[in-house]
Amino acid sequence: MPELRKDPVTGLWVIISGDRQRRPNDFRIEHSTLIGGEHCPFCAGHEEMTPPEVLAFRAFGSSPNGAGWDLRVVPNKFPALQVEGDLDRQGEGMFDRMNGIGAHEVVIESPEHGQTLATMPEAHIERVLWAFRERIVDLKRDTRFRFILVFKNHGAAAGATLEHSHSQLIALPVVPDVVREELEGARQHFEAKERCVYCDILRQELATDRRVVQENADIIAVSPYAPRFPFETWLVPRVHGARFEDAPRHVYEGLARMLKSVLQRMNRALENPAYNLVIHSAPFSEPRGDFYHWHVEVMPKLGRMAGFEAGTGFYINPTSPEEATQVLRNVRL
Amino acid sequence: MPELRKDPVTGLWVIISGDRQRRPNDFRIEHSTLIGGEHCPFCAGHEEMTPPEVLAFRAFGSSPNGAGWDLRVVPNKFPALQVEGDLDRQGEGMFDRMNGIGAHEVVIESPEHGQTLATMPEAHIERVLWAFRERIVDLKRDTRFRFILVFKNHGAAAGATLEHSHSQLIALPVVPDVVREELEGARQHFEAKERCVYCDILRQELATDRRVVQENADIIAVSPYAPRFPFETWLVPRVHGARFEDAPRHVYEGLARMLKSVLQRMNRALENPAYNLVIHSAPFSEPRGDFYHWHVEVMPKLGRMAGFEAGTGFYINPTSPEEATQVLRNVRL
Repeated sequence: MPELRKDPVTGLWVIISGDRQRRPNDFRIEHSTLIGGEHCPFCAGHEEMTPPEVLAFRAFGSSPNGAGWDLRVVPNKFPALQVEGDLDRQGEGMFDRMNGIGAHEVVIESPEHGQTLATMPEAHIERVLWAFRERIVDLKRDTRFRFILVFKNHGAAAGATLEHSHSQLIALPVVPDVVREELEGARQHFEAKERCVYCDILRQELATDRRVVQENADIIAVSPYAPRFPFETWLVPRVHGARFEDAPRHVYEGLARMLKSVLQRMNRALENPAYNLVIHSAPFSEPRGDFYHWHVEVMPKLGRMAGFEAGTGFYINPTSPEEATQVLRNVRL
Repeated sequence: MPELRKDPVTGLWVIISGDRQRRPNDFRIEHSTLIGGEHCPFCAGHEEMTPPEVLAFRAFGSSPNGAGWDLRVVPNKFPALQVEGDLDRQGEGMFDRMNGIGAHEVVIESPEHGQTLATMPEAHIERVLWAFRERIVDLKRDTRFRFILVFKNHGAAAGATLEHSHSQLIALPVVPDVVREELEGARQHFEAKERCVYCDILRQELATDRRVVQENADIIAVSPYAPRFPFETWLVPRVHGARFEDAPRHVYEGLARMLKSVLQRMNRALENPAYNLVIHSAPFSEPRGDFYHWHVEVMPKLGRMAGFEAGTGFYINPTSPEEATQVLRNVRL
C-alpha cells in the first residue's frame, strides 16, 4: 500500500509508492527505452492491454474497451496511489502520514501511435483538454481529494516510459508543494493589493512585450521573468479564473491552438525536446480561490543540470527568458 | 553579466547565467561525456589549465599553482556568478532582480584522477571538509553574501561535467529556496516548542531505530522519514549546531568517516550511482540561527523520474526509507 508522508521540517508531502518486490540490484538506473510499436498498450486494437476505461470519446454504437475510439482514459496500470479505501491519517511520534489514497489515471490522447500534441489537429488537442475537464469534474465529487495534478511527460528525459502520446491525472488528498507555494504567494499579493498577481504579470508582460512568445484571444504564452529551466513557457488565460475546469468553452479552444503552436515552436527551435507539462489550478479545498489564476507550464528538458537542481533546490538557468522568447518567436510555423 | 531574479509569485530566486554567445542549435541536450585523462584540468601537472588557486594544501616550499599539492581551490572557470562589482538591486515594475554577484569556486579534492570520496583515505576527506570551512570563513567576510551553498555533483547523471573528484562552493547574496523552507520550518518548531526540530528527529530516529543507517560518536546517518528520492540519506551531527563552519574539530573527523562509509554502502548496494551532495547550514544573515541544525544531504540519482519531479515539484519515491535503510545497513564494508 502506498503512503503519503510529510517532511517534519519543510512540510513537503511525498508519495512513498513502496514496491517491495524488488531486490537490491533492481535499484539501479533504468536506461529507459521507450515502449513503442506492437508492444504499445495505448494503440488502437490493444485495448485489452489496459485496465477498463473510465472515459472514452468513441464512435456511436461502439463498445467500451473495443475499437472505434478517439480518446480513452484508463486507470494507470502501475498507480502511484490506490483509489480504494478510506483516508487514514496517522501520527507516528512527531511524523505525519496517511495511507496513499488517490486516483492515478492515464489519458490516451489518440489511437494513432505517431501523433503528438504538436502534430495532431487542434480539435483533437481540444478533446484532450475536455477529457481533463471531465475527469476533474468527476474526481472532485470524491471528498477524499483536495487537488488534481494534470501533467504530461513527453520523452524519456522527461520521465515518460511509453512513446504513445498520453497525459496523466493524479488526484491527491493533499496539495503538492509547488502549488502550495504559488497559492501562498498569490494570496499574499491579493491581500496586499486586492489584485491577482498573475493578472498583474500579464499586464506588465503585454506592456513591455519582452517575454511574450505569442498571444491569441484567450491565451498568452510568456517566458516567466524568473524561469527555473531554459525555455520554460507559461500559457496563461487572458481572463482571470481560479480553476481550469471552470473555464468557458472558447478558452479550451484557444488553449489547444496555443499549445500546438508553442510545442511546434519548441520542436523547431530545440529539435523535438522532451518536456514536462503541468496544469496549475486552485485546489478544491480553497472555497473560492479567487486570488489564484490557473495556467499551464511547459518545461522542456534540455540540460544535464536537472540532477544538480533536483538535489539542491537551487536553479541556474543559462538562457534568459528574453533570449528564449526571441528564439521561439522567430520560429516560422 | 549574470543576474539573480525573483519569481513574483513564489519568491524563488534563480540565477540567469545568460551566455549569449550561443546559436539556437546549441540549446539541445548535451549528452555529457565526462572529461577525463589527459584533458583533465584538475590533474596534477595541469595546474595551468585552471584559474589561479585561492587556497591550496601543498608541500612546504612548493609554489602556488605549481606541483606538490594535495588539494586546491580555484575559481570556477565558467562561473554562474561574478565576484567583481557592487550589488545592484533593482525593481523592474513588479519584478525584482539584482546583478549576479557571487563567488563560484571549485574544490579539487585530490591530485589523483581516479580517487573519489568513497575511495580516498579518511584523512583526505577530512581535508576536503577543512577546505570547505576555510573558504566559508573567508567568503563570509564579504558582506555582499548571505549564504554559501557547498555541493558536489558526482557522475554525469548528477550534473557533473568533469570526472575528477571535485566539489563546488557558491556564495550568494540571497538564501536559496530549499534552505529557506527548512529554516522557516525549523524556526516554527523552535518557537512552538523551544526545541530544535532536527534534534527531535534524531531522538525519535535513535529510539525507533528503523531509519538509522549508521552512527558514530559525532554523526548519525539517517534515511529521512519523507525522502524525495530513493536512498536519500542525511548525515546529521549528534550535537546541535547551526553552522557547518562552527563545528568542533572532531565532528569533521567523524563526518569524514561517515561520509566515506555511506558512499561505500551506496556504491556497493546501488552499483556506483551518480549523486548530489549538499551541505545545509544557517545563513550568515541569521544573527544566531540557534533554531537550525546543519547537516549533509546525499541524494543518489537512480531513477528516470527526475524529469517529472523537477517539472512538477511533486515527488513520488518508489523506495521506502525503511527499505533503503535495510539495504544500506546490510552492506558489508
